[in-house]
Amino acid sequence: MSTALVILAAGKGTRMKSDKPKVLHEIANAPLLIHAMQAGASLEPQRTVIVAGHGYEEVRQTVVDHDPEAIVVLQEEQNGTGHAVSMCRDALEDFDGDVIVLFGDTPFVSAQTLERMVAARADNAVVVLGFTAADPGKYGRLIMQGDSLEKIVEFADASPEERAVTFCNSGVMLAKRDQLFGLLDAVEPHNAQGEYYLTDIVGIARDRGLPVTAVACDEAETLGINSRAHLAEAESIFQTRARAELMDLGVTLQQPDTVMLSYDTVIGRDTVIEPNVYFGPGVTVESGTRIRAFSHLEGCHIARGSSVGPYARLRPGAELSEHTHIGNFVEIKNATIGEGSKVNHLSYIGDAAIGESTNIGAGTITCNYDGVMKHHTAIGDRAFIGSNTMLVAPVSIGHGAMTGSGSVITKDVPDAALALARADQVNKPGLARKLFEILKSKKQKRDGVA
Amino acid sequence: MSTALVILAAGKGTRMKSDKPKVLHEIANAPLLIHAMQAGASLEPQRTVIVAGHGYEEVRQTVVDHDPEAIVVLQEEQNGTGHAVSMCRDALEDFDGDVIVLFGDTPFVSAQTLERMVAARADNAVVVLGFTAADPGKYGRLIMQGDSLEKIVEFADASPEERAVTFCNSGVMLAKRDQLFGLLDAVEPHNAQGEYYLTDIVGIARDRGLPVTAVACDEAETLGINSRAHLAEAESIFQTRARAELMDLGVTLQQPDTVMLSYDTVIGRDTVIEPNVYFGPGVTVESGTRIRAFSHLEGCHIARGSSVGPYARLRPGAELSEHTHIGNFVEIKNATIGEGSKVNHLSYIGDAAIGESTNIGAGTITCNYDGVMKHHTAIGDRAFIGSNTMLVAPVSIGHGAMTGSGSVITKDVPDAALALARADQVNKPGLARKLFEILKSKKQKRDGVA
Amino acid sequence: MSTALVILAAGKGTRMKSDKPKVLHEIANAPLLIHAMQAGASLEPQRTVIVAGHGYEEVRQTVVDHDPEAIVVLQEEQNGTGHAVSMCRDALEDFDGDVIVLFGDTPFVSAQTLERMVAARADNAVVVLGFTAADPGKYGRLIMQGDSLEKIVEFADASPEERAVTFCNSGVMLAKRDQLFGLLDAVEPHNAQGEYYLTDIVGIARDRGLPVTAVACDEAETLGINSRAHLAEAESIFQTRARAELMDLGVTLQQPDTVMLSYDTVIGRDTVIEPNVYFGPGVTVESGTRIRAFSHLEGCHIARGSSVGPYARLRPGAELSEHTHIGNFVEIKNATIGEGSKVNHLSYIGDAAIGESTNIGAGTITCNYDGVMKHHTAIGDRAFIGSNTMLVAPVSIGHGAMTGSGSVITKDVPDAALALARADQVNKPGLARKLFEILKSKKQKRDGVA
Repeated sequence: MSTALVILAAGKGTRMKSDKPKVLHEIANAPLLIHAMQAGASLEPQRTVIVAGHGYEEVRQTVVDHDPEAIVVLQEEQNGTGHAVSMCRDALEDFDGDVIVLFGDTPFVSAQTLERMVAARADNAVVVLGFTAADPGKYGRLIMQGDSLEKIVEFADASPEERAVTFCNSGVMLAKRDQLFGLLDAVEPHNAQGEYYLTDIVGIARDRGLPVTAVACDEAETLGINSRAHLAEAESIFQTRARAELMDLGVTLQQPDTVMLSYDTVIGRDTVIEPNVYFGPGVTVESGTRIRAFSHLEGCHIARGSSVGPYARLRPGAELSEHTHIGNFVEIKNATIGEGSKVNHLSYIGDAAIGESTNIGAGTITCNYDGVMKHHTAIGDRAFIGSNTMLVAPVSIGHGAMTGSGSVITKDVPDAALALARADQVNKPGLARKLFEILKSKKQKRDGVA
Repeated sequence: MSTALVILAAGKGTRMKSDKPKVLHEIANAPLLIHAMQAGASLEPQRTVIVAGHGYEEVRQTVVDHDPEAIVVLQEEQNGTGHAVSMCRDALEDFDGDVIVLFGDTPFVSAQTLERMVAARADNAVVVLGFTAADPGKYGRLIMQGDSLEKIVEFADASPEERAVTFCNSGVMLAKRDQLFGLLDAVEPHNAQGEYYLTDIVGIARDRGLPVTAVACDEAETLGINSRAHLAEAESIFQTRARAELMDLGVTLQQPDTVMLSYDTVIGRDTVIEPNVYFGPGVTVESGTRIRAFSHLEGCHIARGSSVGPYARLRPGAELSEHTHIGNFVEIKNATIGEGSKVNHLSYIGDAAIGESTNIGAGTITCNYDGVMKHHTAIGDRAFIGSNTMLVAPVSIGHGAMTGSGSVITKDVPDAALALARADQVNKPGLARKLFEILKSKKQKRDGVA
Repeated sequence: MSTALVILAAGKGTRMKSDKPKVLHEIANAPLLIHAMQAGASLEPQRTVIVAGHGYEEVRQTVVDHDPEAIVVLQEEQNGTGHAVSMCRDALEDFDGDVIVLFGDTPFVSAQTLERMVAARADNAVVVLGFTAADPGKYGRLIMQGDSLEKIVEFADASPEERAVTFCNSGVMLAKRDQLFGLLDAVEPHNAQGEYYLTDIVGIARDRGLPVTAVACDEAETLGINSRAHLAEAESIFQTRARAELMDLGVTLQQPDTVMLSYDTVIGRDTVIEPNVYFGPGVTVESGTRIRAFSHLEGCHIARGSSVGPYARLRPGAELSEHTHIGNFVEIKNATIGEGSKVNHLSYIGDAAIGESTNIGAGTITCNYDGVMKHHTAIGDRAFIGSNTMLVAPVSIGHGAMTGSGSVITKDVPDAALALARADQVNKPGLARKLFEILKSKKQKRDGVA
């Protein structure tokens, strides 16, 4: 049976106190909504429909950037979860299969859980996802009879016996498309807010004699985000799990709690991560690498045996070959660094290709921006770039070439050539002493000393 | 009724193992004593008196820097809390109202608690602040009879029934000035150390038939600092609370535990704080800003929509206008950055004013110090400062002006002009190859290779 | 009685998922094996024998680097702990005294514990180290009768009563050399793996009527490392303890959890450590110093009253005299900095000696590497190095000398002289405006705008 994924993502999230729609707040550097989409993607859905409302345009853009085939429908007024799902009627008109409804602010539902829901659908019209709550509080209770879900009872309407039940409703639901919309047609807004609740389809299905069941998952999977504090808590849950997985794979994290990972970080075994390393999105680190403290990595690839940091910033497009060495206070952006090459100190390498076994001196800067456009710098193999060389792009430095320290290189340098752009040094005897005296007397004057 | 604030701050704090007086050790980058003064300030006291002893001069300076109207009295010998308070007799001679006694090493008493003490004074001569201790240990016990405080009993003197009481004495006390000093006159040094205890006024007041009560606060409010471990614990309590308050206001802290805040940090909503950011004193961040990892901020103001870091250091006097961008390995000190301007890489901007929409190239340095004095740099709007430009202050760069990469600018540059200070590039064919050969043979010689 | 130390370090540590032998994984920047050796060193052993197997050569090198007198024996096949100890027979042939057997993956056994074992040996042939386990699980149980160890029973063989015992076997053992090997001769491989267990000597000793006892230690002391998660846990235990010790000594750690210490870090009292400081191996910090946030220190010495960071990187051989100031984005390697000298911004000082009261301008670089060899830079007292000075080593700058900003210094500068190497500034009126226009029209062309 094919599956369609519906994700409800229209809410404002007032408690976030934000101009940004709630589902675009991030954990592990990906929006909550993308986490929910990735959770659902494990079912390989034939169709994905996102119901957006608050911040519609921003949500739509985020969704299509992530999955151009996803359909985003607008729910102009938020009249409840049942109303939200009914917005998907058109988008699913020609779809024949199961529809699973997830929530854009609930990022942790696991693939295994969703698969168990799909399996349970074979014998049931509707499958609800439940969890056993440590503190059930005001959650709706799932009243089971054997494998059959008798009803979902809201806390306010629950009897003392029902309140004692700890199996609670997560809101996540699975049903065949036809039946889903057929049941939704019967939902009425009995509550004070005049909202249509998706939950009500369970009762209607039971009234119609349809089989309904609930599948149980870990409470942590159903964590919904309603405030910045929840967001920080979810971030912490994600990080703790992701760090443990890396250690399991044979990565050393000297102080796991100080390492920030992204949703897509990949690190090879026998890599050592010192404390305080930030992995932004899109980072791949091969085996046998050392990432030193205070490094900040985004959108980059580090080949095996390399050493990075401390205080190295690798920005998107940084491609480090094997056994490269990137040192302190170095920024690399959109640049390839050849095997065994070194950029050890205080440099900015942007929009560049550097060959093998080349040494980039301290303070080197690729002057890639002329105030209007960006330009490219090419450096060959076994070159030696002197300290504080300015490489005014577009420019190319040949194999085995050298530049003198402090040179501003505006023209190409051929293979094996030495390029210099330097004024001669003049020593003026005694002049420092005189200058100090003059400056001191000026200062005294300025300070009003007689 | 007007209030006078007395803070006892004379102790040495032997367990701190420090040459610095205990009350000057800091949490959230403010001395403990200042935290206590701020707690008391919520009562808008008519007069503030600090009793200093160890490190008197250093304490006095800290106090008057914070509040020039505060009076600092010297307690030369530390003969107990009663003796300390009696040192304030002269400073409060012409004062008619309530006196509240706080402790310089107890930073967390809340405004609400102090207000409840003041309210309780209406019906009582003396009001004691108590707390219910999780582990009462050797604290003095407050023995209540209804709302009336019968007595304070020291642990050593307490009966088993009294020891079972968990309501304990914080030492904080409130009394009308006249009665306070009248009661203190009757205190005698019955203990081995010959010290006068402020606590004893409770018994004396009761003996005189005066009504005495105790007000209860959270145990955490009465945390006193006696060691560096306590200091770290208090820091942690402060930080946890301050981070939660920021999140409540709509600030995202990706990893709250890694962010260090100061006592006066202000951050607007929809600002995202990446991990490992240090907020020193005097930082204000407007809404919609992103502070990236490893940034270090002190005494600066960041207007809305700006992006700072990673690895940005903003020092006192850094004023960032809206939509500015401060990048990595950049230090800004005593400088204004105009709207939309960028300082993206490896720069030092000190004692400067930069206009709007100006781009400061990588490696730019304002040479503000000549070895004796500091000088100012001015840069106009829409200027383009080439990479590695040295701006030798005092110097000014006009609107729409440009400097060539690697230039040392010692003279003013007019609007729309291009300034260059650069030697021409010379390529010497094959010379790099020869140089490498010479250097290698020198090295072989040096290493003793034949 | 003299003692010999045997440390078993032959295991592979499959669960580490590493190409590196388990005992070479590090906590606090020292291999587990070195921690074990240091624990044993408290007994001042006459002889130290390490049994290595997996990664023999790497282990051997690490051992002899740490203690050239230690003997490393090879256990080619790992046939159990008894077999491992029997590999030491030759190395201990002429040794007459007690042999204590430790484990290379168990870094936390305390000196006090080992001393208690030695003391217990006086009345016993064999002394076993045990611990009371919070969760005894499948550990072997130590069955005591008074002070006498009756037997060690493996979990699988234990009766319900024996399983209820929580006193467990750590594996650490002490015996007189002659008896140890005599007992080992009788050990037989009764188990499925055909391994010889050291533990079995207890039963054999009892059978021979020899007195055997067990000494108890803290469970934390016997923590063995089997996975990266264990490694991180051990690191955390080490750090927590080391930070507490520093605070006890009078060091302020603003946020203890963010400071990484090494096994040999030394910090003087009244030093303040801001958050996020990394102490690599070999760091000594004197009293009254401030180490600011995001500093990374290795192999360096910082004299009293200095200020370091934020973002200072001190590498091996950095020697800071009193009252020096090292600022942000500064790297110091193999260099001495004289009293009161300052290197405040964006500099690399390597292979250099700097005098007293000298100011190193922002962006200064010692060009110590010519592509083949490293060279030395010397700077005198009271010198003023202008911003962005390149010091092309070998080179020397005299006392009271000055260099102009942006100069490349290739020749020595005498005392009191001013050295300049600078092209004159030329202002080209209106040329910036024209350049911007040209660049913009080029860009339009490139972007395909008509």
